[in-house]
Amino acid sequence: MLRRFVSNNQVGKVVAANVAKSFTKHQTQTLALKSWSTLNAKRTYASKQPPRLTSETYSYVKRDAKYKQLTPTDVEAFKTIIGSKGSIITDEVPSDLDFYNEDWMRKYKGQSKLVLKPTTTEQVSEIVKYCNQENLALVPQGGNTGLVGGSVPVFDEIILSVANLNKIRSFDNISGILKCDAGVILETADTYIKENGNYIFPLDLGAKGSCHVGGVVATNAGGLRLLRYGSLHGSVLGLEVVLPNGEIMNSMHALRKDNTGYDLKQLFIGSEGTIGIITGVSILCPPRPNAFNVSFLGVESYEMVQKVFQKAKNELGEVLSAFEFMDNKSLKLTKSHISSPEPLEGEHPFYVLIETSGSNAEHDSAKLETFLESSFENELILDGTVSSNESEFKNLWSWREMIPESSAVGGGVYKYDVSLPLKDLYSLVEAVNERLEAAGLSSDTDASTSVISAIGYGHVGDGNLHLNVAVRTYSKEVEKCLEPFVYEFVSSKNGSISAEHGLGFQKKNYIAYSKSEQEVKMIKQLKNIYDPKGIFNPYKYV
Amino acid sequence: MLRRFVSNNQVGKVVAANVAKSFTKHQTQTLALKSWSTLNAKRTYASKQPPRLTSETYSYVKRDAKYKQLTPTDVEAFKTIIGSKGSIITDEVPSDLDFYNEDWMRKYKGQSKLVLKPTTTEQVSEIVKYCNQENLALVPQGGNTGLVGGSVPVFDEIILSVANLNKIRSFDNISGILKCDAGVILETADTYIKENGNYIFPLDLGAKGSCHVGGVVATNAGGLRLLRYGSLHGSVLGLEVVLPNGEIMNSMHALRKDNTGYDLKQLFIGSEGTIGIITGVSILCPPRPNAFNVSFLGVESYEMVQKVFQKAKNELGEVLSAFEFMDNKSLKLTKSHISSPEPLEGEHPFYVLIETSGSNAEHDSAKLETFLESSFENELILDGTVSSNESEFKNLWSWREMIPESSAVGGGVYKYDVSLPLKDLYSLVEAVNERLEAAGLSSDTDASTSVISAIGYGHVGDGNLHLNVAVRTYSKEVEKCLEPFVYEFVSSKNGSISAEHGLGFQKKNYIAYSKSEQEVKMIKQLKNIYDPKGIFNPYKYV
Ligand SMILES: Cc1cc2nc3c(=O)[nH]c(=O)nc-3n(C[C@H](O)[C@H](O)[C@H](O)COP(=O)(O)OP(=O)(O)OC[C@H]3O[C@@H](n4cnc5c(N)ncnc54)[C@H](O)[C@@H]3O)c2cc1C
Ligand SMILES: Cc1cc2nc3c(=O)[nH]c(=O)nc-3n(C[C@H](O)[C@H](O)[C@H](O)COP(=O)(O)OP(=O)(O)OC[C@H]3O[C@@H](n4cnc5c(N)ncnc54)[C@H](O)[C@@H]3O)c2cc1C
Repeated sequence: MLRRFVSNNQVGKVVAANVAKSFTKHQTQTLALKSWSTLNAKRTYASKQPPRLTSETYSYVKRDAKYKQLTPTDVEAFKTIIGSKGSIITDEVPSDLDFYNEDWMRKYKGQSKLVLKPTTTEQVSEIVKYCNQENLALVPQGGNTGLVGGSVPVFDEIILSVANLNKIRSFDNISGILKCDAGVILETADTYIKENGNYIFPLDLGAKGSCHVGGVVATNAGGLRLLRYGSLHGSVLGLEVVLPNGEIMNSMHALRKDNTGYDLKQLFIGSEGTIGIITGVSILCPPRPNAFNVSFLGVESYEMVQKVFQKAKNELGEVLSAFEFMDNKSLKLTKSHISSPEPLEGEHPFYVLIETSGSNAEHDSAKLETFLESSFENELILDGTVSSNESEFKNLWSWREMIPESSAVGGGVYKYDVSLPLKDLYSLVEAVNERLEAAGLSSDTDASTSVISAIGYGHVGDGNLHLNVAVRTYSKEVEKCLEPFVYEFVSSKNGSISAEHGLGFQKKNYIAYSKSEQEVKMIKQLKNIYDPKGIFNPYKYV
Repeated sequence: MLRRFVSNNQVGKVVAANVAKSFTKHQTQTLALKSWSTLNAKRTYASKQPPRLTSETYSYVKRDAKYKQLTPTDVEAFKTIIGSKGSIITDEVPSDLDFYNEDWMRKYKGQSKLVLKPTTTEQVSEIVKYCNQENLALVPQGGNTGLVGGSVPVFDEIILSVANLNKIRSFDNISGILKCDAGVILETADTYIKENGNYIFPLDLGAKGSCHVGGVVATNAGGLRLLRYGSLHGSVLGLEVVLPNGEIMNSMHALRKDNTGYDLKQLFIGSEGTIGIITGVSILCPPRPNAFNVSFLGVESYEMVQKVFQKAKNELGEVLSAFEFMDNKSLKLTKSHISSPEPLEGEHPFYVLIETSGSNAEHDSAKLETFLESSFENELILDGTVSSNESEFKNLWSWREMIPESSAVGGGVYKYDVSLPLKDLYSLVEAVNERLEAAGLSSDTDASTSVISAIGYGHVGDGNLHLNVAVRTYSKEVEKCLEPFVYEFVSSKNGSISAEHGLGFQKKNYIAYSKSEQEVKMIKQLKNIYDPKGIFNPYKYV
């Protein structure tokens, strides 16, 4: 049972002093509850409706005639390269291709007739050389959990999946440096380094059971641990990349410091398959904390959320490992989708989830207790609970982690993942709800409207808001009401139109909302240098 | 007085339990003792001998005739651009140019006849446009504390100093994001954010009183806090850069997450002035810890140093903020140079300095005590002391921080800053000493030899060794004995020939010891794209 304390100073004080019991590493064997990802063997989608073809939904995008159409000769050539160990999926049984052509949200669907799954970097290189020579376009694909339509073809591009490049190459349990193939599943990597030296992967996200280590690097994913462990630009030490001309850049360095020349690997972190196929990753992993605590709080207003954050940063300092917020609607949607016990009794306008993790359970609990006590005393929080064992820990986290999936079960979801200055973070959600209502498009009860509601949640600690517009059905009208409005709003506050998910297909035409003309010019110049024929992931990014 | 405990389990246990008293932020107003940097108003050098011209010492390097020689018309043009506020130094009084032509080690000396100190980014852009058009080569210069000859000209290149671009632009004390001009002194920035919200600059180094924020970004400096706060590739959020064609890349973003396009700024972090002049920096600063502890330990062997490190990582976890080691010879050299009380009574083969910093003084001290007690019990350490107030803290740190300067007072110093796998870190120092002795070049008593001795110290936590060869006089013979031997050794262990200091002039020809042919090709390609005429920092880097 979860223990509670209510916002009566006396009670709060007494109970808070008792509840914050960190549990130690032995109790946290399977900390991560990702019900979406564990269902992965049988793939679940964000939407039940099968997606329309991207080329139909976005009919203004035309296939570029410069790319050759696939021929049987090409397929034979690929068979020769891949040999018997890798695998090739053709349109013999067309539905075999669906998984690779459709994205997780079911917003996009490509028409590829060929999926290649090589088993070595050299095979990837040979395939790319052939495509380059023959002007065949291709889409690098990881776990296909991307949220901007970047991982699936738009037309008939060949899909090059790295799923069969899936070996841990080495792990040094003195330095914490992991070297692995790009196709290793994120959760597999995390489990491996936990079991071989008690380390932790410096990144965690809801899709960890399916997404690849290479995929998170290709999208520069952020996720739940960024607040504590920083961005991949800091923790990735080396990459192996196949360039669009087929050359292999072997930069699998394993040094924490190396100042010899421009840091080439950085270009590929967040490049979304447009200038290189990542085949290997070398990454620095921190020691796994011994103790974890999580606290779930009810808060009166977004202003208070900010105050709680400031206070947490100052008082929890180095043990603060996550600070997530969600609005009332997010919790409501989740409630209708999951069966776990609710974290708090009453309803509150906002909720905050705070995680601490550190090397000493007693110290962490003491810090959290002191913080919670004084937060009550200062009336920053209305209600709250603290996990006192692993299943409570998992349950509390599930209320945050299940939001993405829950927001899609009504039919579909438009997802915007933006960076905004902290003070403006929530105003976007309010503005979007007003706009949808004014247009008569939104109602959480009237089933004839397209939109159920717009909800907001995300990584406050990183200034990162997820705006999810839960819909009964995808519609042009709703999309027009949302775009470019959302991008204009973000741009007016000097935010980023993509904090984490990237540009992909969805935001190809919107980069100018976040980057200057000079920057866009330089980005295009780099694309052009590495991929002059434009064979990698066309119709996307820039 | 420093309290001590000796490696008698009983005593160690009792004393350790009493000494580890963290002191709080109020006591640490002026934590950083950098006697070198405080002397900066009147510049001190590593060597007393005035340097020889680089063109004489390295006579095989020839001036490239493609660069125009400076004319009075050029000087007039620059005067028009800079106007009356900036400043221009010409060879009217030749010695005025010395500071800018000579590096800190006094190993290199250029022959520039012109130093330009613009006051705005637009002026920098105009100057560069003019140089580009006229084929005038230039050297971007920050605080001129670089250690590889990168910051001074080789021949008559114009020096473009950003020292007059020295304003804090903004500091957001909610997010900790600092925006400043490139020419702001590192220590000034650190003090500013301490006073305006109790934040800390995520990087610290011995030259902080002179080096610039832009300079540390241009060299991707590492320093003393990297273990805790990670590399600049993770913490720099935005840059403003003047490109070799004079265009301004304004990427002064202030977002912790922004995935819209290739991360252009990364290219300039560590580019050592070869493809852009950094004029502005936006950087994420962490909250300043409330409590600091430092402990200085005597250790029997390098093997034990590694064991102590492993233990510290596990037990001190998130509060471990520095782990530095030094050999006996390093301490001896320092002893002859500074007057502070010695940290430990007896002599030991190796010394370790451990710093903790955190949000709760009591917790930190408890962690450190437990760690020290069991280190004694397990006979990992022979002797040790813990600071119990600020002046002791500063004194202990000074024994580490004064090594670079101390190793140069005998005449000069050859500095190698390399990354190596932890287990091989110290073997390089041993190999070099053997080699110098075998060649009859080294003796710490016989003043007729060039070399006093080779010492080793550095950031164990980052796998980063500083090998300093203290000499009575710089000599070709010694240099030949050291190079390429040192680089070959490092390469054979898959290390990096430059962990922190960069390539500059010193290592231009040695990059292949750390990077593959493919990587070098790609690095040269980038140089060529951004600076096709090669006017930025010629004769250096690649
Ligand atoms: C439930 C859920 C939760 C999520 N939570 C977060 C979150 O908290 N934070 C966050 O940042 N993201 C989140 N995401 C999105 C996130 O971007 C992806 O989950 C992940 O980073 C993509 O990895 P993947 O292997 O699935 O890549 P894919 O989806 O296969 O590909 C994504 C992009 O990267 C490219 N790519 C993939 N692999 C390679 C490779 N080896 N070489 C070159 N290019 C490649 C593709 O071409 C495509 O453009 C979430 C997604 C889901 C479904
Ligand atoms: C006592 C001492 C201790 C040191 N300790 C460390 C240490 O612990 N860790 C470490 O990493 N380094 C250390 N260093 C060396 C370190 O590289 C420099 O101190 C610092 O990073 C350089 O900054 P600066 O402003 O002095 O740059 P400079 O020395 O002026 O220039 C260094 C290089 O960067 C370029 N550059 C400088 N400013 C700009 C700009 N605005 N735009 C473009 N290019 C520019 C120059 O062209 C040159 O190639 C130390 C140096 C000294 C003297």
